[in-house]
Order: sequence, then structure tokens, then C-alpha cells
Amino acid sequence: MPKNIEPVYYSDYLQLDALLDAQQPHSKKYGAEAHDEMLFIIVHQVYELWFKQVLHELRAIHREFHEPKLDDKALYLVSHRLQRVLKIQDLMNDQVAIIETMTPQEFLEFRDYLVPASGFQSIQFKELEIRLGLTRKTRIAFDQQSFYNRLNETDRAYLEHLEEQPTLFDRVDAWLARMPLLEWQDFKFWEMYQKAVNQALDADEKIIRDNVQDEAQLRQELEGIQRNRDTFAALFASESYELLREEGAVRLSQQAMLSALFITQYREEPAFNLAWQVINAFAELDEKLTIWRYKHAMMVQRMLGTKIGTGGSSGHDYLRRTTEQNRVFKDFFAMSTYLLPKSALPELPEHVRQALSFSLEMGQRT
Amino acid sequence: MPKNIEPVYYSDYLQLDALLDAQQPHSKKYGAEAHDEMLFIIVHQVYELWFKQVLHELRAIHREFHEPKLDDKALYLVSHRLQRVLKIQDLMNDQVAIIETMTPQEFLEFRDYLVPASGFQSIQFKELEIRLGLTRKTRIAFDQQSFYNRLNETDRAYLEHLEEQPTLFDRVDAWLARMPLLEWQDFKFWEMYQKAVNQALDADEKIIRDNVQDEAQLRQELEGIQRNRDTFAALFASESYELLREEGAVRLSQQAMLSALFITQYREEPAFNLAWQVINAFAELDEKLTIWRYKHAMMVQRMLGTKIGTGGSSGHDYLRRTTEQNRVFKDFFAMSTYLLPKSALPELPEHVRQALSFSLEMGQRT
Amino acid sequence: MPKNIEPVYYSDYLQLDALLDAQQPHSKKYGAEAHDEMLFIIVHQVYELWFKQVLHELRAIHREFHEPKLDDKALYLVSHRLQRVLKIQDLMNDQVAIIETMTPQEFLEFRDYLVPASGFQSIQFKELEIRLGLTRKTRIAFDQQSFYNRLNETDRAYLEHLEEQPTLFDRVDAWLARMPLLEWQDFKFWEMYQKAVNQALDADEKIIRDNVQDEAQLRQELEGIQRNRDTFAALFASESYELLREEGAVRLSQQAMLSALFITQYREEPAFNLAWQVINAFAELDEKLTIWRYKHAMMVQRMLGTKIGTGGSSGHDYLRRTTEQNRVFKDFFAMSTYLLPKSALPELPEHVRQALSFSLEMGQRT
Amino acid sequence: MPKNIEPVYYSDYLQLDALLDAQQPHSKKYGAEAHDEMLFIIVHQVYELWFKQVLHELRAIHREFHEPKLDDKALYLVSHRLQRVLKIQDLMNDQVAIIETMTPQEFLEFRDYLVPASGFQSIQFKELEIRLGLTRKTRIAFDQQSFYNRLNETDRAYLEHLEEQPTLFDRVDAWLARMPLLEWQDFKFWEMYQKAVNQALDADEKIIRDNVQDEAQLRQELEGIQRNRDTFAALFASESYELLREEGAVRLSQQAMLSALFITQYREEPAFNLAWQVINAFAELDEKLTIWRYKHAMMVQRMLGTKIGTGGSSGHDYLRRTTEQNRVFKDFFAMSTYLLPKSALPELPEHVRQALSFSLEMGQRT
Repeated sequence: MPKNIEPVYYSDYLQLDALLDAQQPHSKKYGAEAHDEMLFIIVHQVYELWFKQVLHELRAIHREFHEPKLDDKALYLVSHRLQRVLKIQDLMNDQVAIIETMTPQEFLEFRDYLVPASGFQSIQFKELEIRLGLTRKTRIAFDQQSFYNRLNETDRAYLEHLEEQPTLFDRVDAWLARMPLLEWQDFKFWEMYQKAVNQALDADEKIIRDNVQDEAQLRQELEGIQRNRDTFAALFASESYELLREEGAVRLSQQAMLSALFITQYREEPAFNLAWQVINAFAELDEKLTIWRYKHAMMVQRMLGTKIGTGGSSGHDYLRRTTEQNRVFKDFFAMSTYLLPKSALPELPEHVRQALSFSLEMGQRT
Repeated sequence: MPKNIEPVYYSDYLQLDALLDAQQPHSKKYGAEAHDEMLFIIVHQVYELWFKQVLHELRAIHREFHEPKLDDKALYLVSHRLQRVLKIQDLMNDQVAIIETMTPQEFLEFRDYLVPASGFQSIQFKELEIRLGLTRKTRIAFDQQSFYNRLNETDRAYLEHLEEQPTLFDRVDAWLARMPLLEWQDFKFWEMYQKAVNQALDADEKIIRDNVQDEAQLRQELEGIQRNRDTFAALFASESYELLREEGAVRLSQQAMLSALFITQYREEPAFNLAWQVINAFAELDEKLTIWRYKHAMMVQRMLGTKIGTGGSSGHDYLRRTTEQNRVFKDFFAMSTYLLPKSALPELPEHVRQALSFSLEMGQRT
Repeated sequence: MPKNIEPVYYSDYLQLDALLDAQQPHSKKYGAEAHDEMLFIIVHQVYELWFKQVLHELRAIHREFHEPKLDDKALYLVSHRLQRVLKIQDLMNDQVAIIETMTPQEFLEFRDYLVPASGFQSIQFKELEIRLGLTRKTRIAFDQQSFYNRLNETDRAYLEHLEEQPTLFDRVDAWLARMPLLEWQDFKFWEMYQKAVNQALDADEKIIRDNVQDEAQLRQELEGIQRNRDTFAALFASESYELLREEGAVRLSQQAMLSALFITQYREEPAFNLAWQVINAFAELDEKLTIWRYKHAMMVQRMLGTKIGTGGSSGHDYLRRTTEQNRVFKDFFAMSTYLLPKSALPELPEHVRQALSFSLEMGQRT
Repeated sequence: MPKNIEPVYYSDYLQLDALLDAQQPHSKKYGAEAHDEMLFIIVHQVYELWFKQVLHELRAIHREFHEPKLDDKALYLVSHRLQRVLKIQDLMNDQVAIIETMTPQEFLEFRDYLVPASGFQSIQFKELEIRLGLTRKTRIAFDQQSFYNRLNETDRAYLEHLEEQPTLFDRVDAWLARMPLLEWQDFKFWEMYQKAVNQALDADEKIIRDNVQDEAQLRQELEGIQRNRDTFAALFASESYELLREEGAVRLSQQAMLSALFITQYREEPAFNLAWQVINAFAELDEKLTIWRYKHAMMVQRMLGTKIGTGGSSGHDYLRRTTEQNRVFKDFFAMSTYLLPKSALPELPEHVRQALSFSLEMGQRT
């Protein structure tokens, strides 16, 4: 600790003079101040402060994934910070309830003074999306054109530059793809897994053939089995996997997907535990972002009905299109498509299990 | 208070013997008990207990709306109980986080033992939907066929009988439609309102014509004004309103819609305050139900990926179709389509204002 | 709507340049920036923004209570805005979870650079407390000396001036005390109520005397009845009531307390409904503030253990002393002390009931 | 998967017949059913279902800690299940809002019919407390006598038997105390730590002596340093530590406390990560239980004012006494008392660091 610490005063430290002077209702410029415009400003400012914090965490996480090696201490930090982001997202989702205390009429009192400003112009939110991996290509069509047109030169340039950087999605994909244990000495995860999948599906098929009498039902159930076989086949064969990827059905590279599957299935193994926490946190982050978009869209609909939003957007339409499509880590979210129950899961070979353990067992009674 | 009250013991009062004996994991019947099946059972049982409570409130509310007269004391009770329902819904929505602590693998350990049971078979939830007003006709196609096929005779008969009763939606519509002040002595709300709407739109049009130079933009903005004129025209003309209703764009009767609009616009009037709280609570109830369906569908997707649910449903598809369409009180939710800002709102005639007031002013300094 | 509205850009409107430039971690001045100081700053800034919003609402509410007459339209606004404050409080209470994502070690990385700043120096929070009615006299001893010493001249002067203004508590007390119906024509609420109380207690006593055999138990139960009689006696007799008030057992004036009781007991009466919502909202506001203090104190304890806080406070001690004592509207909160079950409640005389009704019944079937 | 799975029907699986028949309002026995008694019953039944689930998890955790060896796979499960318990606690804490929708008057309608039943008679909640480690000895005096008197023979016997079993606290203490690395080869954690603590305090003292001019302030600050020295001295010396333990200032054994400190300070080390999650989860579990008790006590106060609860308890008093004292894992909660900032923390010797790592580094770029 340095010797001379200047004494600090609460309001100076937090720069409250600047912070609490930054609420200037526009309604005042055109007549009497609309009481509720203050709420409108503050709610959006709070969102922007949280966005800043979330970006602060995501940038730090981004840097870790950029390191040539991501050891467990680093992974611990990544996981810890993602947990913080998730908590902030919970709060942001609940915050929608605050703006909903403003009735549509109260909003109408000052709404016309804000034209054409729009939440689409939040550079921090767009940075957040882009950084995660929601680039122009993956974004829904409406968003693609729309929001860039609304930005000033500087903002547009900033985001366009960002679009060219590797995203968190890219980094995470690369990290997973280079996981050392996917293929190690004589062990190949996918060979082992594929065999287990086939056994499970064969067993299911036998049960069906032995038990189902009704021909129509039999056909239907066997078709179900076949669909499952096809799904897994596409996972293991690089060419068909690439096809899925081009269609947009999956986004992770095949290697990364297999690693994620390996980690998810064997997440109790000590060496996989943190990695699994990270994968899971990204899936939750996406889910919470989706809920945020959804609640936000419903709030807009309630505020404006079927009218058009300040920035020309219709909440209703936006809703349908973004909540489903604007997901970055949907492969983690839908990982269960490929999961086997533990009873159908093969034991790992001893030398692999060893490699996933600590050299020293904790908590051993001596 | 009666003289002889039998002494009560906590666990007898709550019938804990029955309650806490009602969790019988099926996995135990086929091998070792899956640890997480207990959670699965309890989470669903808690939902069913809350459904029972919500139905207890909705039935009581239903009865009040069935009375020939719904005075303000009754309306107070309705509002009070709807607030309780909303709080329970908040809790039910948050409860999704509990089931999400079960990983997909943990679910796979006992999932096959539950076939073909499905949440679609929850009679209480269906009663809740039907009672609110989500009848076969208004339900999305998927639901129409689907869930009745899965029920046993008794359950199906119970719900089918219920489908023939007047719903809460019907009762609320009738209550609004008979509101005495919509047309009273020489006062006609819609005439007054229509005039105000026209003035507001004329003023908007003039501003546009005076200020917008660019011809393409001018055309676009004038089209916007015209769309607004059409929207309002349809509201005031019974024939075009009926058309909207047949298309499913609105569901309330025209009289009820106008009353709801009147109450919403003038909700600060003492006599409208409780009525507005009730309208608003129904809109929130619908919104929270939609969020419940949405979160539930996401949870199913996470648990099963793109596989098919225990009852044959695909969460993903269901999501798209029910969250938007299965709303009962969407007209209250989208009421802002027709709202005017207060500055554009005419003062009520004195004799109408009087009729909406208390005969005795509270809080008057004497 | 005025003719010429200047076009607005999102980041200008929200003054994001100032807002997002106001986070300057002090750790950077003495070495490497501590990653988590950003969170610490932003969490506190968000609190300050919410405090500003809460003050914005409370000041407006204060003004309404200052008006010579508080009619139902005004009361509606007061109630509406208090509901908003409650929602913001919920969010502020949940926000403690965000700062808890910072571990004590992470805090230690920059804690020494903040000495002697302290949350006690938040002028807005102190204004909030003072405005509500937590003046020096009613504040716990620790607070009395403590926080004024930590403030700079300007801040201290500002708060000291505020301490001399009438508080919201004062205004609410005056509003209740002047309620017209407490004594109206030949009707005196307290006479009617006192009689009902006596009847209820007499009946209870008779049941006890008739049924309880065991002498020790009988004595104990009769003592309970007597304590209840004393409690009510103190409520109705001005002198003994004043004694209670001097002891700090109650804070409302006797007239205000009786009005609050009247309103609470008969809150279904149309003319009482809004007043009751307001009373109830103040009780909840107090309760949520108490929970905020409590969670905050626990967070401090977790962060610092039994060490002393940056401002010299010990969370642990503060906890015990403030959560119970720093309540302003505790009389509303504990109103149930004086409530009777409805079955023991007398019907209001017809002319009083009429005075509490609307001149026009809503929702009547014609 | 076994061949023949019996088809399952939703309401049979959940035993809805029993579950939904277990709500029998007592008010009905003495007159008209009080509408709100249903809520009262269901709220308590839902709590009991959650208690059952929490016990299901805690018993499984208890078993893991009972095993001679607690490896990382087991620790993962413990951590995973504690996370679930925490989520359930969040929901239970929020559930207080539901019972608060019942007004005191509504409660008074049926309250007298429940005498002398009381929440103190919840055997499951008491089992939960006892299992965690809240035994008679550590429980506050009021609880010690009180609740056993209210139980029937069977229930009392069940809990008394439970009081004699080792608690989760005991198991966790033993697990920590036997941690292999606390003293390993030539490494002694406490020697290293004690040295670091002394250096940090010496440095602080020097800064104070060099900078503080005012004699009174100097004395005060040096006293602060001395108090810190004493606190740490008591931690390292077994005799003085035992004294603290007898006074109730700490509860963990010295070995366990040192291990917990070691793990907390170096929790980024791969081998410590899960152990730290477990320690932290127990601290949170305690905190959330405290918040539950607190909210519950406030709700009781609101419902009954200063009257006495159905079981003879005064919420107000109970509040003060249990929230602070009934904590089991308070040592984890207050661990920060002994923490050093990372900058003052010594690097671990290389062979210790190695022992805490995986044999194989994940995520290495090859």
C-alpha cells in the first residue's frame, strides 16, 4: 500500500455532480416538465451504467480467451465474472417492472419530443451484442439494415470496426476446439461416444419392435429412432456437419461442439468442472438476453399498442424475429439434443480419467 | 366466535401426512431412485397447489362479475384478489429457476419412466385458461386437438363442460358494456372522443405539411397519419369494428372497448379508479401468463434440445405459437393504440365529472 | 404539440458522454487498476440515480400533501407514485446481490484508497430519510452524532436546513387528523369503535371464564385480556395516548391514528379505498427500507467481517440498532394491534355509509 | 432401460387426488368458510413441500460428508445441490410476499380457529435447523424450551433423536480439519500466513507513525492496529482460540478455521475451487435462512401488531433474538475478518502450487 492516500469524499469519488446533473427532461424546453420524463431518463441511464459494467467484464473475459493458454486460474476468473454478468442481467430483466409503472398516457406527455431517438442507438448494447458474436451476418434481416442507418458517423464507424474483430464466440469456439483430451494417445472421444449412441438407439429400437403391435404406431416410432440416428450421424461426419452449419442449424465448429459435448457429459470430472461452468454460463447469458428482449418488446407494445415506436420499430414484429434468432450460444443451450443418460454412458478409460483428476485428492481421511 | 374451538395441531391442520407422502418417484420401481426425480415431482406439485389457489381466487372473482350489480365494495375485492393472483404468478415465473437447477442428464435418468405423462394434462391449468376465456375457438390450432386427446374420460368431460360456461372474459365484457356513463343524458363519450382524435390528427397533419420538404418522406408520413385515421375509424363504426372482431384483431365488444377506453383515459376520476385497476390487472395477468409459457418453453428446450417432449410436444414450436396467440385480454394490453395524450384530451362536462366524484370530498382542510 | 421539435439523438438525450465518463477508479492512481473497483463505483452510482428518482417522487408527493385540499385525483397520483417507489425499492433490495458478487479479497484490493469515504455521506439518502420523517430526534443515537461529522460544510448545511422543514410524516399526520368523517353530525367513530372493542373483549372473557378450569391458566389468560383492554384504553384516552407518544411507543397524533384505524377497518368503502392504499404504501415503503438496511448491513459484515467499515461503522452493530428503530411509519405497520375481525365490527350508520359512496353506482345491470 | 414401462398419467404420477384434497379450512366447521384460509393453508403447504426438497438435498449432502473420502466428483455434487437449495431459499424468501396479500382483518376471520397451532411445530423446519447444526445448545434460550413443549410425543422423540446425531456442521468441520495440505512436507500454512499478517500490520503501523501528527488520533489508530494483532494472535494460538470458541465467538475448530482460511485465500487454485464453492454456499445458505426468519418475523408483526402469535410467540422479540444468534456457519460468513489483500499474500511454494494443480493443463494452445 502506498504511503500517502489522499482522503476521499463520497460525492467526489462517485462524481455525483456530473452524474446527478445529467437528467435534463426535454419536455421542459417546450412547456411544463412532464413529471415522468425523469423516470424515463433515469431508467435508461441505469441501463447504460449496467451495460458499461457488463462490457467491463466481457472485455476482461475476452482478453483471457485471447491468451495463448487459458489455465484453470484464468478459467476460474472467467467463470466468476460471467456469474456476475448473469446477476446483473437478472436485475436488468426485473428493471422492466420500473418503466412499466409509467402508464401509456404518461409516456405520451413527452414522447413526441424524443423523435427520432431510439434504444436501437445504444452503442454499448450493440457493442455487447457484437462482442458476444451477433455480427451482421448472424443478425436478423431487420436489424442488419436498420440500426446502422440511425447512427451518427462516429458511432457507426466504431461498431463497424468492432464487427471485424474476433468475437467472444470465435474465441470460445477456438478454445474448445483445441481441447487436448478430445483425441489423446489411443483415445478418441467421438469413437467412444458414437458407439454408445448406437448401442442406445439399437436397444430402443429392439424394445419398440418387441412391444409395439399396432403397425401405424410402430412405423411412427421407428421413424423417430431414425431421425435420432440422422441427428447423431450429422454430428460425427464432418461433411454433413458443415452442411448443418451452413444452414444455420448449428454455429460451433465440429471440434468445438464435440468438446462441449464431452465436457457436458463428464462435467463431474475435476478438470472439466470449471469449463462446464463457463459453457453453462454462456448459455444462461444468452437465455437472459432473450428474456430481456422479450420483456422489452412486450413493454413497448403496452406503451404504444400497435403504433410505431420512436425509432420506427414495431415491438410486436421485433419480438417475433429477434427472440428466437438473435442467439449466439444456442448450441450450448440445445446441447441436450446430443446427451445420453448416465446409464448409457461408457466409463472413461483409466488413463483418461487420471488425466482429468488432481494429482492430490482433497478431503481424504488419513 | 363460537365457544368451543377444538385445539389444532400444525401437522394435522395442514394434513402433512397426506401431503408429504404424495411423492413417489417412479425410477424406484425400475431400479435405483433417481435423486432428482423428487425435485421434478415437488416442483410440479407446488405448481398445482398454486393453480388451486389461483382458481380459488378466479372462481370468487367470476362469481362477483356474475352478480346483477357489481358495486365498488365488490370491485375492491375483485381488485384485491387479482393483485394476489399477480403476486402468485410472479412467484410461479421465478420458480422456473428451480427446475433449471436440474441438468438435462439428471432429467434423462428418469424421463423414460414418465411416458406419456405431460404437463398438457394439468386439468387445473386448463381450467384456468378456459375460465379466463381461452376456449377451443380462440386457442391455437395445435392446442385445439392436442390436449383433449391426452386426457382420460372424466377429465375431458369436465373441461368440455367448462368450455360451455360463460368465461371471465365474457363477464368482464358484459360488465364494461353496461357501464352507465358511456352514454348519459346528453353526453356521448365516443362523440366527444372522436372529435378530439380528429383534432389531434388534423394538427399532426398540418405540422407535417408545413415542415416536411422531401416529397418521399412527406408521402410516407401522411400515410402514417392515414393509417391512424383508419384505426380510429374502425373503432367508432360498428360495422368495421365487427369486421376487426371477426378477423381476431380485437376480441372485446365495441361497447366494452369504448368503456375500457373511457376508464383508461379518465382513470383519475374517483369512480373510475377501481375499474381501471381491474382492467389493468387483467392485462398484467395475461402478460405474466405469457411470460410463464415463454420461460417454460425455453426450459423444455434446454432440457430436451430438439428432441420431442414426454407428451410429444416440441417446446420450440409451441413457444412460437402460444405466447403470441393465447392471450385473452390483449385488448386491454394494447389499449394504448387508442390513447390520446392528456393535453389533447377534452375536459369532461361538469355534470359528468360530478357523477364520477364522491358526494363527500376526503382530505379537505376545514 | 409545438411545431418545431429538434431531432434528438439517443446518447445526447441521456448525456452519455458525462454519464459514462464518471467512473474513475482510484486504484489506478496508486498502481494497477483493481478490476472490481468499476463494479463498486457503478453499483453506488446506480443507487444514487434511483435515490434521485425516489426523491423526485417523494417531493411531488410532499407537494400534494401540502395543498390545502387533497382530493381523490391527487390521492390517486400519490398512490400511483408510491407504487413506483415501492417497485424501485424492490429493485434496490435485489441489487445487493450484485455487490455480493465481489469477494472480500477483491474489495481489499482497493478499499484502502477510499478512506474515509462512506455511504453515510450519501446526501440523497439522508434527504430521503429526513423527508420521510427520520429527523435527528427520532434517529438512533449512533446516527445522530455520526453522520453529520462526516459531511462537508455545504452538505451539512443543506441537511440541517431540511431538518427544519415539515416532513412527509408531519403532512400525512395532518391530512389524516383533518379527515372529515371521524366526527360527523351525530356520528363519532371512536365511540362506536370503543363499544365494539368492549363487547368483543367481554365475550372473550366470558368464554375463558366458562371454559378454562385450571386456575393458573385462567389467571394467565385473564391477564392477556386485561393487557388488551389497557392497550385499547390508551388509544381512546388523549392523556394516556400522549404518554405513549412521549415514550416513543406511537408516533402519530391521536386523531391521525384514529383516522388511520377507521380507514383500515372500512377500506372497502369507496371513499376510503385510495386513502387506504396510501397508508398501506407508506407502511410498505418503511418495511422495504428496513430490509434494505438489513441486507446492506449483512453485506458489509460479509465484506469486512468484524473489521471496521471505511467510514468507521461496524455493520453488525448498526444492524441491530437501525433496522428496528429507524422506522417512520411504524404505526401503520403495526395497525393490526387495534383491528377487530369483521364479524365483531359494527355496520356503519346509513348516512355515513352514503357519504362514503359514489353518487352514481358503477356496473349496475339495467 | 427396462422393457416394460407402465404408461403414466399426469395426475396419478403427482398424486393430485391426495394433494388437492388436503386443504380443509377450519372456518367452515364453525360457520361460513373464510375465503382467505385457503391461501393460509396452501402457503404453508408449499413451504412444507420445499422443506421436504431441501431436506432431500441436505440428507444427500450429509451422506457425502460421511464418506471416508470426499473426492472432487462428490464435492461437485455437493456444490451442485447446495446451489439448488439456495435457489429454493430465494423462492421461499420471495414467497413471504404472497402471504402479505392477506390483510390482518382477513386473517382475523379465521385466526381463532387455529389455536394453539404454530409454525414452531413444523418438524421439517426443525429437522432442517438441527441437521445443519442448530442444536439445543447453540439455539437461543427462547427456542430451547419453547418449541419442544409444543410438540406431540412422536415428533418430540424424532427431533430429540436427531439432536444426538452428528450435524452437517460437525461433518463439514471434520472435512476441513483433515485437509491434507494445511501441513504438508516442510510447508505449514499458518506459519506462512502469520508471517504475512505481521508484515502487513507492521507496515500499517509504520505508515501511521510516519504520518499521523495528532497525538489523540495516533493513539486511536495504534489501538486499532493492536486490536487487529490480538484478533490474529487468537487465531493462531490454540489456547486463546479455544477460549474464543467457548465464548461462542467462533464455532469451527481451529484446524477447520485455518483450512477454510487457506481455501478462501487461494480459491483460484484448481484444487481449492470446488471446496471454496461449498464453503461459500454454506455461508449463503445461512444468510438466506436469516433473511427468511427476518421477513417472516416482520410479516407476523404486520399481521398481529403487538399481539401474541397463535403459538404464543411475539414476532418482534423473536426477530431480535434469532436473526443474529441462530447462525450455524457464521465463521464462513465472517471469514473476511482474517483475509489479507492479494498484494500482501505470499506466493505459495512451487511444490504446494503443483499439488493444487491438475496433472494436465486444459485449454493450452498447441
